[in-house]
Amino acid sequence: MTAEAKREAPFLKPERKARIDEVVAARTRTLTVVMEAFCDPQNVNAVLRTCDAYGVQDIHVVEGPQKPYDRNKKISQNADKWLDVFRWRSTAECLGALKSRGFSIYATHLGDGSVGLDALSFAPAVALVFGNESRGVSAEALALADALYAIPMRGFSQSLNVSVAAAVSLARAVDRREAERGRHGDLPEGEARALRERFYLLAVKQRARIAKAEAVSERRARRRA
Amino acid sequence: MTAEAKREAPFLKPERKARIDEVVAARTRTLTVVMEAFCDPQNVNAVLRTCDAYGVQDIHVVEGPQKPYDRNKKISQNADKWLDVFRWRSTAECLGALKSRGFSIYATHLGDGSVGLDALSFAPAVALVFGNESRGVSAEALALADALYAIPMRGFSQSLNVSVAAAVSLARAVDRREAERGRHGDLPEGEARALRERFYLLAVKQRARIAKAEAVSERRARRRA
Repeated sequence: MTAEAKREAPFLKPERKARIDEVVAARTRTLTVVMEAFCDPQNVNAVLRTCDAYGVQDIHVVEGPQKPYDRNKKISQNADKWLDVFRWRSTAECLGALKSRGFSIYATHLGDGSVGLDALSFAPAVALVFGNESRGVSAEALALADALYAIPMRGFSQSLNVSVAAAVSLARAVDRREAERGRHGDLPEGEARALRERFYLLAVKQRARIAKAEAVSERRARRRA
Repeated sequence: MTAEAKREAPFLKPERKARIDEVVAARTRTLTVVMEAFCDPQNVNAVLRTCDAYGVQDIHVVEGPQKPYDRNKKISQNADKWLDVFRWRSTAECLGALKSRGFSIYATHLGDGSVGLDALSFAPAVALVFGNESRGVSAEALALADALYAIPMRGFSQSLNVSVAAAVSLARAVDRREAERGRHGDLPEGEARALRERFYLLAVKQRARIAKAEAVSERRARRRA
């Protein structure tokens, strides 16, 4: 533990600490999401919130011309505070880095050569790539992908909303990982420890901010009285 | 076939007709969705698009004070044209009608007494109720529900975006129905026939509109030439 974490940790309530430990135990870095040139910040933030809910710690954002990632707190419910969001200038750079770290790249694509979501294996390390809301994934991503997949569609719509597609994909990936390996969270103990300390500190700071805001409003109330 | 359907059907291309037949074969009215007082039309429309994708023909909208259902074409990709959307003034009226028709009511709820999504059975007829984006489902819906359920959350966020929650629930329901009964689409033949005729007509009208628009732009182009 760092000196700061040691000094601050006692100020966390045991239930809050237990909650953090539980979240970290369910976190993974061997399943990740790449958002390529999204134009709607609401979609970026919905995906971040979904990643948090499914224990996905690392998220990669390839910025399009519109830079949609603006930490819209209302939609993400501040989920990105508890995530590692990496920003990239190009798809090639992002996917190249992931491939060199052993990730299989699966890109969502509605055309020829796509398999169903059920046909995918999610071991050992997989990055799911979601493309721009109207154009889909780029030709670059298609060329670099190890597999193209589509969520089976039973109706007239050709595609799902991109944040919905990401959620359905992650739900299936987590199910599959749990069925095959018995668990989804898989951070090595050193990484888990570091993440717990970081989250303890974040939680303590959050508590301090809330306490300060409460003190201010109490002083104001007293002055008015 | 009605006289109109008979007259118009020959104008449909065989591929389009086959597509419609395929969609109708995958449609169900024994799984339905209730949206209660949503305030964001983008969420209503994302859910409609998801229902179409998962073969859910009937959708119930309980209108809140803000009447969010405005057929936002961009988001639903016009999915509601191929769906039956029923509007209700109150939750009691909507859920009462569904219960009297034999539907089990499952409401999403993050509090005490909720079971996991996996614990639910989706036979014989189930209505999934999703509540307002900030307040959740109403006390009325909680009281009328046969079961309360929550999607397991592994992170710090307390809930998913409502359109994401609906999609994850529907994906699971369809999987479960297919595993248990071998199929998801289950319209009685009379209803399936009626729906096919309705969709043929809609598709013919769509074709006619497109042809007309093309003729207009062609005439304009000739005039400019």
